[in-house]
Amino acid sequence: MEVMKRNEPALMMYAASEYDSNLYYAVKFSVPDPFPFFQIKGKKIILMSDLELGRSQKQAKVDEVLSYSDWQVKARKAGNDKPGVADVTAYFLKSNKIKTIQVPDNFNLGLADALRKRGIKVESKTDPFFEERVYKSKEEVRMITQSLRYTETAIHKLEDLLRKSKIKGKFVHYGGQKVTSELLKKVLNVSMMEDNCIGSHTIVASGNLGCDPHNTGTGPVWANQSLIVDVFPRSADTFYYADITRTFVKGKASPALKAQYEAVKVAQERGIDMVAPGVNGRAVHQTIQWDMENRGYFTEKRNGTMVGFFHGTGHGLGLDVHEPPRVNSSDHVLKKGEVVTVEPGLYYPGVGAVRIEDLLVVTDKGHQNLTVYPKKLEIS
Amino acid sequence: MEVMKRNEPALMMYAASEYDSNLYYAVKFSVPDPFPFFQIKGKKIILMSDLELGRSQKQAKVDEVLSYSDWQVKARKAGNDKPGVADVTAYFLKSNKIKTIQVPDNFNLGLADALRKRGIKVESKTDPFFEERVYKSKEEVRMITQSLRYTETAIHKLEDLLRKSKIKGKFVHYGGQKVTSELLKKVLNVSMMEDNCIGSHTIVASGNLGCDPHNTGTGPVWANQSLIVDVFPRSADTFYYADITRTFVKGKASPALKAQYEAVKVAQERGIDMVAPGVNGRAVHQTIQWDMENRGYFTEKRNGTMVGFFHGTGHGLGLDVHEPPRVNSSDHVLKKGEVVTVEPGLYYPGVGAVRIEDLLVVTDKGHQNLTVYPKKLEIS
Repeated sequence: MEVMKRNEPALMMYAASEYDSNLYYAVKFSVPDPFPFFQIKGKKIILMSDLELGRSQKQAKVDEVLSYSDWQVKARKAGNDKPGVADVTAYFLKSNKIKTIQVPDNFNLGLADALRKRGIKVESKTDPFFEERVYKSKEEVRMITQSLRYTETAIHKLEDLLRKSKIKGKFVHYGGQKVTSELLKKVLNVSMMEDNCIGSHTIVASGNLGCDPHNTGTGPVWANQSLIVDVFPRSADTFYYADITRTFVKGKASPALKAQYEAVKVAQERGIDMVAPGVNGRAVHQTIQWDMENRGYFTEKRNGTMVGFFHGTGHGLGLDVHEPPRVNSSDHVLKKGEVVTVEPGLYYPGVGAVRIEDLLVVTDKGHQNLTVYPKKLEIS
Repeated sequence: MEVMKRNEPALMMYAASEYDSNLYYAVKFSVPDPFPFFQIKGKKIILMSDLELGRSQKQAKVDEVLSYSDWQVKARKAGNDKPGVADVTAYFLKSNKIKTIQVPDNFNLGLADALRKRGIKVESKTDPFFEERVYKSKEEVRMITQSLRYTETAIHKLEDLLRKSKIKGKFVHYGGQKVTSELLKKVLNVSMMEDNCIGSHTIVASGNLGCDPHNTGTGPVWANQSLIVDVFPRSADTFYYADITRTFVKGKASPALKAQYEAVKVAQERGIDMVAPGVNGRAVHQTIQWDMENRGYFTEKRNGTMVGFFHGTGHGLGLDVHEPPRVNSSDHVLKKGEVVTVEPGLYYPGVGAVRIEDLLVVTDKGHQNLTVYPKKLEIS
């Protein structure tokens, strides 16, 4: 094992671990400003500013915390007039006899070019940068599930509000006011914040707005029309995401919308049933596609806009809301420990938008559906 | 003007505008997944996935929205078997007779190297990528001020809770329970979320914990000791940040802590008074340093930990919480429209931590302090 580690390439990252998931994964410590990270012969080393030195010595899960300003002084003594990040880190690498580093694809290009000028060979590696990040531990699944429960709590509050609402004319009313996407997003985001989960880009899209799958929704909620509720917060405690989508109708759905909902629900359940180690994600995606096509739901461009099912079936989730693997037309064999969404949708302006999303972990022999929220279209 | 634009280098970005501020600044449109952006002869062009095509045509502030999958088909016909992002964007650039692109420093290294292999010259540009981003318009100042008002509303709620709290022994109690940093952060973050502002990494640090300036705080709040409250949310409506720090003591501060607070407050006010166009930020920083040193507050390492004033005086703020310019020992002449913080601090474990931060915009002849929250140490 030790020998293997000695043959591993030296790794480097330079980012703010508050925002960069590979770096957070490596150090388990959140910093809002960029700092250099190295992994040399299996040893994790970070160079921290005076501002972060004390905190990182206590909290960072690394082998060594070094003072950035100490290394800046060393680099200056070695002949750099005003040593910047590239000077300091190149000097540090050379002092450790490292000539080649492997960095993530999203490594800062400016810094990479500056290191290359200083004689360091910089090779980028596509995600997953850390292979093991794809396979979630029990503890990681627990943290993801916790984020999901808080999200489900928030959606229950939204559903309660819609249940107590009244239909007046074409719109939904509550407390004498029109219910809007903005109000419902606030209900979700505030509820999640009470559980220290940060909702961002939360989608509550009514009627045809939901037919643009990333439209977050604005304006009044229509009665008797589809309402897409897609919520994917990050826990500010654990940094792990959750992701769930439900589609509701306040009032009565049209027969066409009901049939469309049923098609998505049945196809999703067929897709979910397939999720197991050794199964190709492409097969899951194609089964869902075919299932919906067999019911007459086709994907095509109409008047320049896509209709039907025109996104992937799912994506990996963890410290990023979208991370490897993808469950779509690309070739990927599912493995134990992968956490993926299964979220088919059908979008036909005029009829409405339907998307249903559950979160699954691939287990030894099959999968566990982490989502417990019921799937029911109409709210009376 | 037109001629100038034609001589400008072609720009490219590839990022998720939800997280990348330069890209958001360019397109004023938030997308959670990466997409290619080009600026060619002054014209802004984006290549969008089918998923985002409809929404971006309606919402993105660009000259042209093109279909990524259409260009993928073109790149395939031109001889790429399975065209990836580098194939498609290189083909797009060549079709537009572009051989050299300028990209931000934080451009994805993997993509840059792949474009270079395909014959595109990729040059990175250090921030500010768009010079004009540094100089805030009236509308931008209005949005920043709005985020700040919501933040101040949240801090008022925290102060109210502390006012209603009781001191029992060494700790602060409310509703029969110990008041904790976690509770107070929740009060802040939930209040801000009600105004659609996302608090992240919010700091409420009691006693010696505050002496690590980025320690976000945990555990019970001590009576009669310093409490650092540093809050910097991003509006989910406008995407503009605010940033403010206040230091409180529930109960009575020690004479040493009172004197330390006074030193920071007076130095901060002296620094703020200096802020005007043509003034070097370094002079502001040094004046604050000297002012505090003259009162006997020295900056040094004690037992391996920094004490005193060991961070910069301030930073630019806008679509990023930290952006150019810095107000510190580096050379930067302030200019009209820059929005900067002035936030000196003094940290002495055993006595306590003090930091006071206001947000300023540099005006024609001086500055306007955007912050209205009072500066008062003790809460009885």
